[in-house]
Amino acid sequence: MADKDPLVVFTPSGKRGRFPVGTPVLSAARQLGVDLDSVCGGRGICSKCQIVPAYGDFSKHGVTVAKDALSEWNAVEQRYDEKRGLKPGRRLGCQATVQRDVVIDVPPESQVHRQVVRKAASARVIEMDPATRLFYVEVDEPDMHEPTGDLERVARALRQQWDISGIEAAFPVLAGLQKTLRKGAWKITVALHKPHEDAVPRLVAAWPGLHESGLFGLAIDLGSTTIAAHLTDLDTGQVVASAGVMNPQIRFGEDLMSRVSYAMMNPGGDAEMTRVVREALDTLTVEIAAEAGVDPALILEAVFVCNPVMHHLLLGIDPVELGQAPFALATSGALSLSAVEMGLGALSGSARIYVLPCIAGHVGADAAAVALSEQPGKSDDLVLVVDVGTNAEILLGDRSRVLACSSPTGPAFEGAQISSGQRAAPGAIEAIRIDPETKEPRFRVIGCDLWSDEDGFAEATAQTGITGICGSGIIEAVAEMRIAGLMDPSGLIGSAEQTGTDRCVAEGRTHAYLVHDGTDEGGPRITVTQGDIRAIQLAKSALYAGARLLMDERGVEKVDRVVLAGAFGAHISPLHAMVLGMIPDVPLEQVTSAGNAAGTGARIALCNVAARREIERMVREITKVETAIEPRFQEHFVAANAIPHATDTFPELSKLVVLPKVAFGAGGDGDGGGGGRRRRRRG
Amino acid sequence: MADKDPLVVFTPSGKRGRFPVGTPVLSAARQLGVDLDSVCGGRGICSKCQIVPAYGDFSKHGVTVAKDALSEWNAVEQRYDEKRGLKPGRRLGCQATVQRDVVIDVPPESQVHRQVVRKAASARVIEMDPATRLFYVEVDEPDMHEPTGDLERVARALRQQWDISGIEAAFPVLAGLQKTLRKGAWKITVALHKPHEDAVPRLVAAWPGLHESGLFGLAIDLGSTTIAAHLTDLDTGQVVASAGVMNPQIRFGEDLMSRVSYAMMNPGGDAEMTRVVREALDTLTVEIAAEAGVDPALILEAVFVCNPVMHHLLLGIDPVELGQAPFALATSGALSLSAVEMGLGALSGSARIYVLPCIAGHVGADAAAVALSEQPGKSDDLVLVVDVGTNAEILLGDRSRVLACSSPTGPAFEGAQISSGQRAAPGAIEAIRIDPETKEPRFRVIGCDLWSDEDGFAEATAQTGITGICGSGIIEAVAEMRIAGLMDPSGLIGSAEQTGTDRCVAEGRTHAYLVHDGTDEGGPRITVTQGDIRAIQLAKSALYAGARLLMDERGVEKVDRVVLAGAFGAHISPLHAMVLGMIPDVPLEQVTSAGNAAGTGARIALCNVAARREIERMVREITKVETAIEPRFQEHFVAANAIPHATDTFPELSKLVVLPKVAFGAGGDGDGGGGGRRRRRRG
Repeated sequence: MADKDPLVVFTPSGKRGRFPVGTPVLSAARQLGVDLDSVCGGRGICSKCQIVPAYGDFSKHGVTVAKDALSEWNAVEQRYDEKRGLKPGRRLGCQATVQRDVVIDVPPESQVHRQVVRKAASARVIEMDPATRLFYVEVDEPDMHEPTGDLERVARALRQQWDISGIEAAFPVLAGLQKTLRKGAWKITVALHKPHEDAVPRLVAAWPGLHESGLFGLAIDLGSTTIAAHLTDLDTGQVVASAGVMNPQIRFGEDLMSRVSYAMMNPGGDAEMTRVVREALDTLTVEIAAEAGVDPALILEAVFVCNPVMHHLLLGIDPVELGQAPFALATSGALSLSAVEMGLGALSGSARIYVLPCIAGHVGADAAAVALSEQPGKSDDLVLVVDVGTNAEILLGDRSRVLACSSPTGPAFEGAQISSGQRAAPGAIEAIRIDPETKEPRFRVIGCDLWSDEDGFAEATAQTGITGICGSGIIEAVAEMRIAGLMDPSGLIGSAEQTGTDRCVAEGRTHAYLVHDGTDEGGPRITVTQGDIRAIQLAKSALYAGARLLMDERGVEKVDRVVLAGAFGAHISPLHAMVLGMIPDVPLEQVTSAGNAAGTGARIALCNVAARREIERMVREITKVETAIEPRFQEHFVAANAIPHATDTFPELSKLVVLPKVAFGAGGDGDGGGGGRRRRRRG
Repeated sequence: MADKDPLVVFTPSGKRGRFPVGTPVLSAARQLGVDLDSVCGGRGICSKCQIVPAYGDFSKHGVTVAKDALSEWNAVEQRYDEKRGLKPGRRLGCQATVQRDVVIDVPPESQVHRQVVRKAASARVIEMDPATRLFYVEVDEPDMHEPTGDLERVARALRQQWDISGIEAAFPVLAGLQKTLRKGAWKITVALHKPHEDAVPRLVAAWPGLHESGLFGLAIDLGSTTIAAHLTDLDTGQVVASAGVMNPQIRFGEDLMSRVSYAMMNPGGDAEMTRVVREALDTLTVEIAAEAGVDPALILEAVFVCNPVMHHLLLGIDPVELGQAPFALATSGALSLSAVEMGLGALSGSARIYVLPCIAGHVGADAAAVALSEQPGKSDDLVLVVDVGTNAEILLGDRSRVLACSSPTGPAFEGAQISSGQRAAPGAIEAIRIDPETKEPRFRVIGCDLWSDEDGFAEATAQTGITGICGSGIIEAVAEMRIAGLMDPSGLIGSAEQTGTDRCVAEGRTHAYLVHDGTDEGGPRITVTQGDIRAIQLAKSALYAGARLLMDERGVEKVDRVVLAGAFGAHISPLHAMVLGMIPDVPLEQVTSAGNAAGTGARIALCNVAARREIERMVREITKVETAIEPRFQEHFVAANAIPHATDTFPELSKLVVLPKVAFGAGGDGDGGGGGRRRRRRG
């Protein structure tokens, strides 16, 4: 770089240097370490290296760029533009050469490490740095005088043309390599999988000529109830299709503990559950690929997040140890393995699988994925992240330290074990308000945006009917009953006399609140019973007790903010959650939803190899707290039974809503019955 | 080590050092780097570290060893002796401690790198250094307060107790690890596979407690006709069983080229051939394990050597490119892969496969194995190694350089395409002598040690009959005919008049020599026909021409010695081979047989990981010569058609035998007809 050579400034990186006249922009970018993509290695055929020269005065850079700063369009660019079309102002970085001082912008889609903005509320982005990448190579033809194998000549081409050494080939690729080379006239595109810095690059696919149909990966959130998959373009990071199926293991048990029991009671039961979930994954793979119009053979990676029991059943490990203390995992570390050895046949035969590490026997790879997505360890203030499901995974932390536990909330939050409960589906009540004066309810059902007291509601819901209450609906119902004075802090529902409304009806020795009587239209009579209240109390007490245990461990009495994760978390009303005492008292605006954070964590790990090392490190550093053996968990659990809480004050909540001081029990303040005794163990 | 501390001298290594009183012998050995085995890590349960203290004056070492030089027998040794018996004079190195100056012998069976003497004539030994080894570990029990996976605690135990870091687990082992740990009460033996220095140690098996049923590997020579396997104890290096089966691919074609043709002509034909050979390998594995009384699940490694076509068909690669110039291999490098991905189900599910590298498109991993076994590159004199089979693989070299080629001899040397030819089996003539005076033959058949002119021959062969001539028999027959003057240098058989014996009978326009007429006993009439002579001439010319081509390339006119490899090589008479002009002229005592050198090479690679690196390096350094494109090959081939040779003199041979100057052709010295034209291509 002589002083009189033209100056080249790249934006947005700001990297700059002087290069001799005639240097291709791609070469200049490479020498400066500018993030400019190329699959064909500068041969003018892949078009990945598109750049935008900027003309005029740039005082910021101290450069004036003349119109002839780059070479004229050449034949390669001309041909490319005719065939494919080049956006106005764009040049191919490998063809355009530097003639004078120039400022060159690298648009996001030409960056290897381009950033993908997540759809979720959070502004966090995924930086693309996938384990599998494409390389176009021109391979020497075989020569009898120097007899090396075709694979060895591909390896030499990668060494010479891409400075990549010591590859090894996946077995299925080896079988097809000779045909591919000859079909491509010794010009091929290879996909190399390099899952970490020190890994030997693995040849996982090869295509004749320049491969342009993309490269895909699956981010899979394998839940006890639902398997959700995102088919992701490993080049752009875009999700090209999402799909979910029910986990077919449900027929062996709705919750995890019943599946563990099934494995314990039935010899071969674990293998059977492994078989059905792998079949479901294969089916899901075929369907999601078809939906996106993608050949499943182009799916070269899959990343899994799941709870520990699903983790073991996916891997073909008997989960029996997870059903009893000390809840020992067969392996807690991250796993990198082949789709074939995992028994997944629908992906490419060379596809690689990455399973996130588990945090502990009850805190799985799904919780690790939430940690990767929500990054409590990078939070300046103290954040509580709660992934609400059948088990709640709870993370508490900031830059100094992160703690984790799981808490056995049971399935009440998902509408199970609730008298009128149902899964979130059209017809289910998902939101409810009770007038504090009249004690009359109004509600909304899934599939209709109208409230039940608005015009047209009956017509709009005629199709679905009003079929029950889903998880978010029951939380709101119980909280609203507390706000409206229909239920006292101990959780006891008052009688019609005590509450002044006929909607409080006697049911044996307790009372229930009538939300909707659909019997005239042939629908169900939907009530919130005393039993429902107890089930919700058990669930919310477990959740709150888990959070408090982490706060104890951390030595704090309050947290700065709360993040609700999980698909369900997205639908919980923060105010109602706080009235219920599910979560600690924080300013309401400090309660946010992270959506399906576990799924997002899976996508991050799929798109960025460094994130895999990051979560492996994070998991090692997380302080694990086992709720099952902490005596204080039981104390916190009992204290949290009251609504919102027996002893903890909720000052932020009281700024928003005044909870009526009512008491319907014999003594006027009963604890409401046996929460501790009836508490379920995990599941 | 203080000056006044006792001196410990180990034999045979001669390593010595001073150690504090009370140091266990095993610890002293480890500190000095003495090769003393231990699986249990010094816990007194594996008995691998047995040593023999020597008492008395050792002027060589400058030591006098008193009777109390080592500690008294302790309870552990007592118990071991009672349960298992300790040979007289033996001690457990981990229990006996140093008390005074002592000389300690490490018997061969206590050495990790013990040497195994090969059965073959050569005095070379295999030094044990297998890729897979056993380690006994005591693993921490799971702890809820510190929730790590069982695998992670096994890894920690290996780190703490054996200084082995960063293991990864084979998938099938992971599934059974929890049960194994609990069954062994947290004491287990693991097998770790570490195929090279930088490899991540891979957990490939685990057993409760101390595993004492051994660890096995298969060395497999996968030939076109026969698959031979040696089941080898990976601890002792001993072959515990050997077995062979016919290669079932024979039904798709007897020789390699006809199998390549089958793959070309029949879509899916290559996959079919891959399937049957893998099935045969599974069957062979089950049989050989049963024969040795070994659980096939204990077979954790297999090493393959084979020619390039078998190599590709084993790996599931279409061999079509090997059927046409430039004979490009899909891959020439060594391969390390799992038995599962190779479709071999009879071995352990975690078994690892190593396939030796191929040298060139016609010079396979079998030739590489011969090079590993015979080490031409370590020879002080110039050695020619010939592996005789359907193709001959030829190596020429010494310390300065090694060259290799293959030559298309065709199947005549194996008795195929010979009128009375047959495979080597009971009843086949394997040796023959013709009286130069009477022209009468006498012979020996396989299955009987008597010559045909000895008493009792008829009775001894009544069972098998005299059924044909095998490969070594036809070579001797043709050579004897030349010595007896029944055939001239051009290969033409004389008439009864020309030779003076009625055994030379007319067959159309040519003559045949009657070896044995068994028609009276219902057996065949066995002759050597003019066509048989031509077939042998083609084969031996190809072999000699290949050797000469390497000699040209090396710039020499003679070699110092010849090694005949291959099962067939073991049966060839060196004198007759030289009369025939199969091999260059050398002193007869310089022609030796190496037996099944390819199989030995496979065993070496199985037992010693360093040997794998060695052959990979050797193969890279070998000068490859392609006979198919060398014009001089054709010249050498034509000149070698005469018996022993048209132009080369055989001075060493002429010291032993005077070949009669006869000529039976029209011109008296005819070349004998069209060897060059009728030459077959490879097969």
